Amino acid sequence: MANTRTGMGLQLRSLLKQEGILELSLASVATPQPGADEVIVRIDASPLNPSDMGLLFAAADMTTAEASGTAASPVVTAKVAPAVMTAMAGRVGESLPVGNEGAGVVIEAGASPAAQALLGKTVAILGGAMYSQYRWIQAAQCLVLPPGTTAAEGASCFVNPLTVLGMVGTMRLEGHKALVHTAAASNLGQMLVKLCLEDGVGLVNIVRKQEHVDLLKKIGATHVCNSTSPTFREDLVEALVATGATLAFDAIGGGRLGGQILAAMEVAANRTAKEYSRYGSTVYKQLYIYGGLDRSQTEFNRNFGMTWGIGGWLLLPFIKKIGVEAAQKLRERVAAEIKTTFASRYTREVSLAEALQLKEIAVYGKQATGEKYLINPNKGLL
Amino acid sequence: MANTRTGMGLQLRSLLKQEGILELSLASVATPQPGADEVIVRIDASPLNPSDMGLLFAAADMTTAEASGTAASPVVTAKVAPAVMTAMAGRVGESLPVGNEGAGVVIEAGASPAAQALLGKTVAILGGAMYSQYRWIQAAQCLVLPPGTTAAEGASCFVNPLTVLGMVGTMRLEGHKALVHTAAASNLGQMLVKLCLEDGVGLVNIVRKQEHVDLLKKIGATHVCNSTSPTFREDLVEALVATGATLAFDAIGGGRLGGQILAAMEVAANRTAKEYSRYGSTVYKQLYIYGGLDRSQTEFNRNFGMTWGIGGWLLLPFIKKIGVEAAQKLRERVAAEIKTTFASRYTREVSLAEALQLKEIAVYGKQATGEKYLINPNKGLL
Repeated sequence: MANTRTGMGLQLRSLLKQEGILELSLASVATPQPGADEVIVRIDASPLNPSDMGLLFAAADMTTAEASGTAASPVVTAKVAPAVMTAMAGRVGESLPVGNEGAGVVIEAGASPAAQALLGKTVAILGGAMYSQYRWIQAAQCLVLPPGTTAAEGASCFVNPLTVLGMVGTMRLEGHKALVHTAAASNLGQMLVKLCLEDGVGLVNIVRKQEHVDLLKKIGATHVCNSTSPTFREDLVEALVATGATLAFDAIGGGRLGGQILAAMEVAANRTAKEYSRYGSTVYKQLYIYGGLDRSQTEFNRNFGMTWGIGGWLLLPFIKKIGVEAAQKLRERVAAEIKTTFASRYTREVSLAEALQLKEIAVYGKQATGEKYLINPNKGLL
Repeated sequence: MANTRTGMGLQLRSLLKQEGILELSLASVATPQPGADEVIVRIDASPLNPSDMGLLFAAADMTTAEASGTAASPVVTAKVAPAVMTAMAGRVGESLPVGNEGAGVVIEAGASPAAQALLGKTVAILGGAMYSQYRWIQAAQCLVLPPGTTAAEGASCFVNPLTVLGMVGTMRLEGHKALVHTAAASNLGQMLVKLCLEDGVGLVNIVRKQEHVDLLKKIGATHVCNSTSPTFREDLVEALVATGATLAFDAIGGGRLGGQILAAMEVAANRTAKEYSRYGSTVYKQLYIYGGLDRSQTEFNRNFGMTWGIGGWLLLPFIKKIGVEAAQKLRERVAAEIKTTFASRYTREVSLAEALQLKEIAVYGKQATGEKYLINPNKGLL
């Protein structure tokens, strides 16, 4: 063994009970001995991404959250509405580990040369259950970080970086020439700004606050539209005309913004149309909803002709579509640029137990732009 | 000349004026001499399809309609809301002919053998401006109706028949195995029921009234769900499980039905799922909106995972996609089955002048299921 460990480790769990109660707690789980091609990673950093919070909170009403247990082994319970329970039927009664991605040090390795080569290396991994002290994983799934990279710096190598690369990749695959992005001042949004600048891709950023306009302009964004501005629609049309963007990625989901984007794309398309078409422009306009920051219903007026599509977008189907080799190239690009293009910022680092404190949940659970937490599952435990 | 005509003919026109007024009237237009490959068709029957009414009424508020002019040359005016004017900017000031499809007798033909062969034949044609006494058209665009077929029987050879064939064709192209259809008791809906029965395609029909359930059951429909029934959601899920339908064509557009269909598809898909997936089922669910019977906004809750799409659907892009040869085969099938699978029913036949009477507009403008008008542009004029 490369490190002192008891063979047991803490793991954060999310359990949705039949009676409509969400229970968050820490379980003590055994870390298996790695097989020949496997390694054990001591997780030192794992981000709390919006995609993690869906699994973590099970759409519970966190205003009803109550704390119990002890400081070292806290328990949080909250109520889940009956309508939500139907949608969540598949996970009821199963105590689920959480955490899509993370980074840490390989402390044990199987007998194969590939596994042995990783011993002591700082690696980034993807695959769930990262809010754990120790994570058993295939050696081939480890992305070795460049020397001098900390686990905290490498914690977010997959979800956000591959998502922004997936957005630009989808744009190319589906024949669009520029992008629109909402909630654009997020960590992911800032990454997309940097990637589009680097790759020369036109990008229209939509935010809700002047400070976010300023933030994105400062990192080099050309087009930033404030949806709370009285000139928002005109600003958006101008930016769409300037970039030719006909593909939007929407992190918000609920409300009217998605439809407004499609309507503005239609106005932009008709600017250059030569004759009236009763079914609207023949320019294909696509909106992909990849997040659900606003859980309210999606509403739109269909005032954008007939040549449009709205759909869900997920990273994994995109990765499958491009194939193993192309995906590996994307991962290598992320590792090489993890301190520049794909750098993430966190406002706070917490332990597993701290992540289950109500005062912390109240902050990171809001998913406010600029607030991003990093879990260090071994904080205070080593 | 094969027939006595003055060289002039009446043509119904729709004009949207800058000041927000829609004006419907009859113009007298010259019929050109046909070129070598062209013919003149005396239009004896042309349906008032929902897709025609979009162009005809320009989304005007027809409760404000006023009549003027004379009985032989009526004029109808109505107000158009400012918001609509923006969407219609491309057609403002242009006096547009209306009528997608029709049928009639070839009364003049150019010198080419193909054109001459059509003289005296009853043909069906597509291409706009069919609410005209005479229509100049390429000989190659004429679909010759089987002997013994009247113009009224052949008036609707394209829009509805090719649309239902396009729905089944899209289902096959995009890898779905059965269909859902809304407003399913319409002329088009009944045609789809007959086509799916003939082709052995599973079909879930959604209607709003018990009498429409009865009507569709009578013509052989297996699955008919009444959206006003208290057991609608359960009924729909059962029908989706039974058919495996993951593709829906929606004629309504506005409201919540489209989202309910996707949600029911998700429930049906999860019935057979083996483990919980946080992003919902991986079964792709598609809703195509091909009409706008309900002009209100579209609303949905996104309670159907991430593997879904909503989009506009139009016949012409489908026809282009399958290519000339495949499209010609579809047309020939329609002609061969125009009195059976693709038969249409009309509640009333009107002249061009009658089509502009307020009392008639009040009936056909409602687009109520079971009410369908046929225009005979030469009624009372020959």
